[in-house]
Amino acid sequence: MKRIGIAVNQNKPSAVDVTGQLVELLEAKRVSVLVDSGVADQIGRSDLAMDVQHFPGKVDLVFVLGGDGTLLGVARQLAFFDLPILGINLGHLGFLSEAEPDDLHSAVDRVLSGDFHLEKRMMIEAAIIRNGQVIHNSIALNDVGIAKGSFGRMVTLSVYVDDMYVDTYSGDGLIVSTPTGSTAYSLSCGGPIVSPHINVIVVTPICPHRLNSRPFIVQKNQEIRVEVSATHNDMGVTIDGQVGYKVEANDTILVRKSSHYTTLIKWQERGFFDVLRQKLHDPN
Amino acid sequence: MKRIGIAVNQNKPSAVDVTGQLVELLEAKRVSVLVDSGVADQIGRSDLAMDVQHFPGKVDLVFVLGGDGTLLGVARQLAFFDLPILGINLGHLGFLSEAEPDDLHSAVDRVLSGDFHLEKRMMIEAAIIRNGQVIHNSIALNDVGIAKGSFGRMVTLSVYVDDMYVDTYSGDGLIVSTPTGSTAYSLSCGGPIVSPHINVIVVTPICPHRLNSRPFIVQKNQEIRVEVSATHNDMGVTIDGQVGYKVEANDTILVRKSSHYTTLIKWQERGFFDVLRQKLHDPN
Amino acid sequence: MKRIGIAVNQNKPSAVDVTGQLVELLEAKRVSVLVDSGVADQIGRSDLAMDVQHFPGKVDLVFVLGGDGTLLGVARQLAFFDLPILGINLGHLGFLSEAEPDDLHSAVDRVLSGDFHLEKRMMIEAAIIRNGQVIHNSIALNDVGIAKGSFGRMVTLSVYVDDMYVDTYSGDGLIVSTPTGSTAYSLSCGGPIVSPHINVIVVTPICPHRLNSRPFIVQKNQEIRVEVSATHNDMGVTIDGQVGYKVEANDTILVRKSSHYTTLIKWQERGFFDVLRQKLHDPN
Amino acid sequence: MKRIGIAVNQNKPSAVDVTGQLVELLEAKRVSVLVDSGVADQIGRSDLAMDVQHFPGKVDLVFVLGGDGTLLGVARQLAFFDLPILGINLGHLGFLSEAEPDDLHSAVDRVLSGDFHLEKRMMIEAAIIRNGQVIHNSIALNDVGIAKGSFGRMVTLSVYVDDMYVDTYSGDGLIVSTPTGSTAYSLSCGGPIVSPHINVIVVTPICPHRLNSRPFIVQKNQEIRVEVSATHNDMGVTIDGQVGYKVEANDTILVRKSSHYTTLIKWQERGFFDVLRQKLHDPN
Repeated sequence: MKRIGIAVNQNKPSAVDVTGQLVELLEAKRVSVLVDSGVADQIGRSDLAMDVQHFPGKVDLVFVLGGDGTLLGVARQLAFFDLPILGINLGHLGFLSEAEPDDLHSAVDRVLSGDFHLEKRMMIEAAIIRNGQVIHNSIALNDVGIAKGSFGRMVTLSVYVDDMYVDTYSGDGLIVSTPTGSTAYSLSCGGPIVSPHINVIVVTPICPHRLNSRPFIVQKNQEIRVEVSATHNDMGVTIDGQVGYKVEANDTILVRKSSHYTTLIKWQERGFFDVLRQKLHDPN
Repeated sequence: MKRIGIAVNQNKPSAVDVTGQLVELLEAKRVSVLVDSGVADQIGRSDLAMDVQHFPGKVDLVFVLGGDGTLLGVARQLAFFDLPILGINLGHLGFLSEAEPDDLHSAVDRVLSGDFHLEKRMMIEAAIIRNGQVIHNSIALNDVGIAKGSFGRMVTLSVYVDDMYVDTYSGDGLIVSTPTGSTAYSLSCGGPIVSPHINVIVVTPICPHRLNSRPFIVQKNQEIRVEVSATHNDMGVTIDGQVGYKVEANDTILVRKSSHYTTLIKWQERGFFDVLRQKLHDPN
Repeated sequence: MKRIGIAVNQNKPSAVDVTGQLVELLEAKRVSVLVDSGVADQIGRSDLAMDVQHFPGKVDLVFVLGGDGTLLGVARQLAFFDLPILGINLGHLGFLSEAEPDDLHSAVDRVLSGDFHLEKRMMIEAAIIRNGQVIHNSIALNDVGIAKGSFGRMVTLSVYVDDMYVDTYSGDGLIVSTPTGSTAYSLSCGGPIVSPHINVIVVTPICPHRLNSRPFIVQKNQEIRVEVSATHNDMGVTIDGQVGYKVEANDTILVRKSSHYTTLIKWQERGFFDVLRQKLHDPN
Repeated sequence: MKRIGIAVNQNKPSAVDVTGQLVELLEAKRVSVLVDSGVADQIGRSDLAMDVQHFPGKVDLVFVLGGDGTLLGVARQLAFFDLPILGINLGHLGFLSEAEPDDLHSAVDRVLSGDFHLEKRMMIEAAIIRNGQVIHNSIALNDVGIAKGSFGRMVTLSVYVDDMYVDTYSGDGLIVSTPTGSTAYSLSCGGPIVSPHINVIVVTPICPHRLNSRPFIVQKNQEIRVEVSATHNDMGVTIDGQVGYKVEANDTILVRKSSHYTTLIKWQERGFFDVLRQKLHDPN
């Protein structure tokens, strides 16, 4: 018998309703359920409440109710535990979510009967190094952005791949992205679309001062080292566009493939290119 | 007889030296000279010290020792007084500076003998409006940037031209630029190069989420209204990439052509395309 | 009393039908009508047949049934005679057409009652010069493309503006565009959108080898000279994407503003940005 | 003892001289040499003459005197025989050539003493299919371009990856590129730079009409199928920018990874990013 955890983005208007329905549905199937603390109370089931970070060991898989952003956050929280995640989309069409609230019945049936496949998505990890010390450490499913702030003048970043000097980029910064992240911020900055089944790392300069600076793609096992050679106070590293850390001149940021993966529950029917086409032609 | 003010970027290594030479040269020609306060002391001529903002009425034209950034700042300070400016370049080749420290003699000769022409450069002005009140007001020679901060997620901006709705842009923000500014930040964001002799306004989205968002060009007498429809705390308006103001959701930013111009002292020999070609092929 | 000529793109499925309806409608209003020769026969009104190039002097304005492409062709044919043109769109939404077949009644009423305004659109003219002789001469409403053929290797073009050297472009070629043409081929090559009310000339390199080559905008009265410094047999000049001429190494192409304009009949309601937004978000 | 063949681009001014020196150098080391027929005569050694396509079986490795273009041609000719190639650059800095004429001595020494490593470069193959028949078949080291001619209006291409529909592209065409080709024509069209050590396939639209069409990257074992759904007479498939075939409406072009590789002789010292940086900053 399966144990399922439900992570919820409470900011979505339908979040409480859909959570309620999902709990009912799962319990009717005699599944043991745990629910994101905040929402558990709101559906009157504080008996099921648990914070998402405590899901590992207590559940076999996780339903994420929200958008791609919600799923990114859960993926980072659970990265070390290899728990399969099913995204149930409460907002616009997403790249990562696989089901819609209207499909709740069929989604539950497919999951319980094992009628799905698991898709491993490469993650990257970033370390910010100051005076030889790692001061922050983070894992990302989409991307690591190294960028100037809103009042910022140009930042200047020197980039090395496996200790080979690539180039020095002056501009708004740069993004180191996974294939999963290639359709997110990197794409807006001129990066290519990379099929999520390919394990590579994409480096995309953001509004570079030199017009001949271009996105480039390196092997999954190569390490990207970014040296902050000049900046001002207002500069930061951003993980999946969600979590930020200040960086300073002379800091170094190391980015490399993580040994952890996000495991997505996927049906066969909806291909990457189908979602891509829909998103590109109608991005919101 | 001419009266000349000298504005100086003290951060440039050669600033004090070149200022000293220039003062000597000008006084030998019996020109009355005023010198940027900070530097006047350093060259032992505190008798000539005056802050740049007090130059108007006291001098007939201004020499700016520094780079394009220095000249931008002086141009904004003096915008209301129509004082001709000669840029003497202490750094990399610039678009706005016309002379190099090595040409000091000939530059002084040409200026004193009237062997130059004046080039009027269009400026724009921006107002930030909150709850119906103008809370900031600024003039710019290059551009007005409206952009997210370093930890920012996407900002969403609705743009109107003369009250006609253009589009809503989600992304890093957008830049409203003069022709002079078209070769600065706007260019890094994919904007076109506009000959400085054309009076138009360029609007360039920064890393837009919708890939079909593109730079557009409107008439000089059209007003750009930008409504900040969604954002977070870390967002700002930047004037010429130098001065910043925080903005909030529901703020409106109005940008239009200023009635003031920057008047540059130019020789005939060095055309816009010559400088452009050099800058593009070797940007630093 | 008005005399109206009808130009028709016979390849559009509804062309004959709409022409028939339009003739009936106009004659009921006692307008004297002439119809594009090919279609006049098909609607059984060979009495009204006349080739479009003979319209000048015989009609006061021209209805064009077709798409933007049809209107471009008619605009070039009639450029010297300043005849107002109303585009009636038989295909996808266009930038130049103003009415749809469903609006036929109201379009006719507005035109006859003078309830419209005239919009003058700048045109450009191109001359191909070989061994000092003009071998071709053409007028364009959208653009003049100078580009390699399908089996072509790179072409190399040196560009001058009013005899000032701009740069040498190696790549697929370049486009010289009017503001009207800025939303056509130039846009696909990375050019900016220019409001059709601004009179400037846009030069957009096509897939340039040097990545720092960028679109640029010059004044309406400036002459663009393109010298074909290296090419191979398969290279041509294309007018509005419709008419082509072979060019050879050492040919020179001169492009400048024409003294002629295309005069479009426009209602007030549909702004440039409304059409632009619709076209960008759903290009076909 | 080694047997070495020399392929030469006779259009390079120094071709004959360098060939002569190289033959002398190799024979002094008692290497058996064969020389590209045309040039063998010119250096007075018709005894060594042989067409490059007959090198296989007679030589152990091939020196290519010329530029990247010359090497591409030789690579295609020898693709089936796995002969290592050393490029000696007679023109501008190239991505594929490893030695300069000035290094001839040391290059020969390194090759003879085995002081090099072999770098396998992925190739792709294209088939043009008309009415169910393969009418052309080709192998490429850089890219397969499918593009309109110089007088062409837009072509419309539907693209499938492993029978999954990707999108339909209207515009100038598209390029299917290897990692090696990612720094050639694809780059000029907005494609990303892909490290040559990654085996993937890059698809880059050329000046697409839909502005949200973007380059994408698929796995090396995926098949790209391009259906020519609308075109006109002037359209072609180009192999490495060098060899062209006409295509027609309703033709299908299949592109997939070849089982053959180009084997380049490389020293360790000059990294991919070093060459890239030099080429980007000074492309000619």
